[in-house]
Amino acid sequence: MNEKRKLVLVGTGFVGMSMAYSFLNTGGIDELVLIDVNHDKAVGEAMDLQHGLPYARGKMTIKAGGYEECKDASIVVITAGVTMKEGESRLDIAVKDTMILKSVTENIMKSGFDGIIVVASNPVDSMTYVAQKVSGLPKERVIGSGTILDTARLRYLMSEYLDVSSSNIHAYIMGEHGDSSFVPWTNAYVGCKNLLDILDEQGKDLSDLHEIYTQVQQAGYEIIKRKRSTYYGIGLSLNRLVHAILDDENVILTISAYQEGEYGQEGLYIGVPAIINRNGIREIVKLELNEVDQAKFDASCETLRSINTGTIDPLL
Amino acid sequence: MNEKRKLVLVGTGFVGMSMAYSFLNTGGIDELVLIDVNHDKAVGEAMDLQHGLPYARGKMTIKAGGYEECKDASIVVITAGVTMKEGESRLDIAVKDTMILKSVTENIMKSGFDGIIVVASNPVDSMTYVAQKVSGLPKERVIGSGTILDTARLRYLMSEYLDVSSSNIHAYIMGEHGDSSFVPWTNAYVGCKNLLDILDEQGKDLSDLHEIYTQVQQAGYEIIKRKRSTYYGIGLSLNRLVHAILDDENVILTISAYQEGEYGQEGLYIGVPAIINRNGIREIVKLELNEVDQAKFDASCETLRSINTGTIDPLL
Amino acid sequence: MNEKRKLVLVGTGFVGMSMAYSFLNTGGIDELVLIDVNHDKAVGEAMDLQHGLPYARGKMTIKAGGYEECKDASIVVITAGVTMKEGESRLDIAVKDTMILKSVTENIMKSGFDGIIVVASNPVDSMTYVAQKVSGLPKERVIGSGTILDTARLRYLMSEYLDVSSSNIHAYIMGEHGDSSFVPWTNAYVGCKNLLDILDEQGKDLSDLHEIYTQVQQAGYEIIKRKRSTYYGIGLSLNRLVHAILDDENVILTISAYQEGEYGQEGLYIGVPAIINRNGIREIVKLELNEVDQAKFDASCETLRSINTGTIDPLL
Amino acid sequence: MNEKRKLVLVGTGFVGMSMAYSFLNTGGIDELVLIDVNHDKAVGEAMDLQHGLPYARGKMTIKAGGYEECKDASIVVITAGVTMKEGESRLDIAVKDTMILKSVTENIMKSGFDGIIVVASNPVDSMTYVAQKVSGLPKERVIGSGTILDTARLRYLMSEYLDVSSSNIHAYIMGEHGDSSFVPWTNAYVGCKNLLDILDEQGKDLSDLHEIYTQVQQAGYEIIKRKRSTYYGIGLSLNRLVHAILDDENVILTISAYQEGEYGQEGLYIGVPAIINRNGIREIVKLELNEVDQAKFDASCETLRSINTGTIDPLL
Repeated sequence: MNEKRKLVLVGTGFVGMSMAYSFLNTGGIDELVLIDVNHDKAVGEAMDLQHGLPYARGKMTIKAGGYEECKDASIVVITAGVTMKEGESRLDIAVKDTMILKSVTENIMKSGFDGIIVVASNPVDSMTYVAQKVSGLPKERVIGSGTILDTARLRYLMSEYLDVSSSNIHAYIMGEHGDSSFVPWTNAYVGCKNLLDILDEQGKDLSDLHEIYTQVQQAGYEIIKRKRSTYYGIGLSLNRLVHAILDDENVILTISAYQEGEYGQEGLYIGVPAIINRNGIREIVKLELNEVDQAKFDASCETLRSINTGTIDPLL
Repeated sequence: MNEKRKLVLVGTGFVGMSMAYSFLNTGGIDELVLIDVNHDKAVGEAMDLQHGLPYARGKMTIKAGGYEECKDASIVVITAGVTMKEGESRLDIAVKDTMILKSVTENIMKSGFDGIIVVASNPVDSMTYVAQKVSGLPKERVIGSGTILDTARLRYLMSEYLDVSSSNIHAYIMGEHGDSSFVPWTNAYVGCKNLLDILDEQGKDLSDLHEIYTQVQQAGYEIIKRKRSTYYGIGLSLNRLVHAILDDENVILTISAYQEGEYGQEGLYIGVPAIINRNGIREIVKLELNEVDQAKFDASCETLRSINTGTIDPLL
Repeated sequence: MNEKRKLVLVGTGFVGMSMAYSFLNTGGIDELVLIDVNHDKAVGEAMDLQHGLPYARGKMTIKAGGYEECKDASIVVITAGVTMKEGESRLDIAVKDTMILKSVTENIMKSGFDGIIVVASNPVDSMTYVAQKVSGLPKERVIGSGTILDTARLRYLMSEYLDVSSSNIHAYIMGEHGDSSFVPWTNAYVGCKNLLDILDEQGKDLSDLHEIYTQVQQAGYEIIKRKRSTYYGIGLSLNRLVHAILDDENVILTISAYQEGEYGQEGLYIGVPAIINRNGIREIVKLELNEVDQAKFDASCETLRSINTGTIDPLL
Repeated sequence: MNEKRKLVLVGTGFVGMSMAYSFLNTGGIDELVLIDVNHDKAVGEAMDLQHGLPYARGKMTIKAGGYEECKDASIVVITAGVTMKEGESRLDIAVKDTMILKSVTENIMKSGFDGIIVVASNPVDSMTYVAQKVSGLPKERVIGSGTILDTARLRYLMSEYLDVSSSNIHAYIMGEHGDSSFVPWTNAYVGCKNLLDILDEQGKDLSDLHEIYTQVQQAGYEIIKRKRSTYYGIGLSLNRLVHAILDDENVILTISAYQEGEYGQEGLYIGVPAIINRNGIREIVKLELNEVDQAKFDASCETLRSINTGTIDPLL
């Protein structure tokens, strides 16, 4: 692996491009290559980014390219897929996306790529599963964006609710990036103080938490209703994840990780807190879930597993 | 004026939102308010940005709002207008945009606003003229994005051509943000060395410069052809301009400034290098133009003046 | 209060200057004024900083000045005092420092200053008490650096010990910035997981924690032994605190705050977690301390109170 | 060369440590190793920096170490040497420093180091010459800080004088980092405008420029008189240079480069503008000097050459 921090983006839709544009603002990579099935679009996107370079904090080489560019990449981020439309569920588009992911992953691997794949294509837990299966890369080197954005939404909303900086809100959205996700509230903290104790002290109602979770879970739909798709939040989340990897941060993020019994489940990718570093997923952080939360996690796994085995496996 | 760096964005299209999103990445403002004729869209955009805050470097309050939010704003950036489509010229949409700008500016001023207006709506030189006329604000406090992006494109392309950092490329695009713009090449430098001397030394052809200018001038069209509209480059340029104002930089940027004889022309806004600080446009930098460049500048002014007096003035 | 973020530093020793220099690197303020009893030194320090500006990320005005500069300052940071030498305890120098703090605070207030005072002079808890008493400013607007650095040291050492990013280490050093400080270990978390559970799972010995605390508590002495004084860590900590105030972060930091019964103690400044925003200390975060930790807190308060009433009060 | 951006600092005096501390604030490297003849001091300095990490923007590994750490370093920065005292000239300490540099360089090379050496030890032009001779590394991979700080001082002072951002001041200090340096004023620009034209227009006196140069040349002495030594400005300058290398910027900086006839001189290191990238000095930028400036350059070279051949060569 060479010294350059080379990032390849496959899929130049708004999600991928929002990540790309954020790197122009934050810096942190040396080279950015845009790949799209519509190569002309990738070329146009590269031009639009390049023109910002003289005013940008981040210095980098930007270009459109082909899959051969993956060969010496540190990370490939896949956002390719069918855009979710209003009214469409994340699962509706699973079959179409599976075929896309399979093809994309094969193309990446043909280049001789030996880095880390980050998958943000939806339904993300299943698509990460596809990318790992097809690539044959070690499971810790294929990471799904999972609930990284859901957790950001949760932290933002709790931050507003409690009037405390989101950097002090320690809580996770776990499970599927979708309707069966959940918050293990007994494991939530504000600074070093248990969230439930705070609500109790402030005379706040526990039902507020359910309201907050509902807002998180509906956030994607609410944004899509108003602006057709959602991309800035996930763009920043992907920037965050890529930085965590390249900077070897050993930081805990909720991403889609392959389960090997940490929470009593095996053989699928799903959103859990995990320690991320230059090698990918170092380890899954095992929280003590109460019975209710464990049941939610199991149910979420069941949902995903049935898609994986029922829909996806036959396609691979 | 209070201590908060409050930025109001009018128009949540891709241009405005790319600027907004870049502030999430770079920081530098305390509050961001999004106004759109489609308030629901502004709400959706605010949500999409807010969810990135937990992973963002910039800490700020983000919300959708109405024009009353302009009252205590430091800067209002106007990007509202009709989106340029493929095949459409920047001038085609002037009438429609004039009516929009007039209404937007009136609404801003009704709030009691007393800060700086930055206009990025196209055709930008004419729309800046509209905003100043309608607002009655001092001319130095109404600034058009002018050729700020064109200059970035020029510097990027020259940087690639000469293999030198764009931070060492000192050259301007002047005139209309449009087909009649031009580069005063005799006033272009790389570091402390005259550009024409460098080309001479390297045995490079002067016609390369014309090729580079053509690429700059066509860049918008080329990107639109490939991705329907262009926004990342201008988003970063607007971030740069807002920083220059708020940080009181006294930095030279090519923006659309009201002419009072600096280059022998009066009574219109057009792209020139100018020193920007917390009070807006401190002064226009007067370059010594050769005859050819002066003629180009005069012609560019003529183009704009005829639009202003022929089309716009009757509408105000 | 005007729009400028103006920071005045009183005392241009290594601690204060390390904070000043860090702002040159991070930006975040508009104006920096250096005051020192040795005005010539302040002038020299200002020159040394100014010369870095062309290569600095932060744009700001830097100058040496007199106390009249405090008039329109957002924040005044006091680091003036007698430097702690090897072998000297933080308390040895209390009397001398009290007289200095008294005089400095009087000078600040004479300017008409009405912002926030941050005190980093040692012994910091007592010196913050002096600054508040003498200034008569609301108690929430006089903040001591308290255990902000001790907590950073704790988080760094635990981060190394557990191989997890310090951003995921949630633990505080409380009490006096000195030998009677302590860590409420039962209130310590890594991500959303209790620290003691983690040690248990990893088969680690609780005595390791005592070892870590000892290293924190001895850190200052260890560094002084090797390089005569300690300033980079505290310089960054002060930068962090000033940012928290100016950016209105509502973030939890362990600083020296005036006690009004939150932990059963009153009438003194001591290190506790508190929510910091543009108004200073918004509120003290009340953790549930176990009996042992409460006793340590009480003892630490006793130490400080006896200095305040025995030594300091008679001097004011 | 591995993927990590590893920086080794030899000499943990204030100059080196100010560079080290600035990286904590700006980020940009992955690993920082401190080497000092007084290893205990290096350990203390590492501790002081480490404790700031939880509040720092830059994530990195910091440690004290031995020369074996240079083996896989990207860059080694040498600041070791005898501190210049008030009244002492930069040349007085040449002999002592030569012996130190020789030994340091030998130790670096013994590790198997194959990266880029940056020399900041004074007298810097001669010490860079020593480091290149002793290391045997290609001349473009041994770079002296040269007049990088002098140029920053010049740009800052001109920025103040003209009230224009230093980012728009394009002018160089060339020659020895010492009394025989000079400014080629006819090659100085503000934005795209010749400096002399500006002075003329503003009715300013050319003698002001001589005053500014004198201030630059005396700056070090003036600071030393007031605070004993100067380090923040050079610390930031070294951070800038290291970034230029690691980010492969192809940016023009005035550094000490080996002369091979570009300005009619050969066989010595001296301050000139040069394009810096990941390979070190890509090329020296050849300005057209007028007769007076060429004579100054020749004289400055003569000064250095006599030291090199008279004093240094016999010691190697």
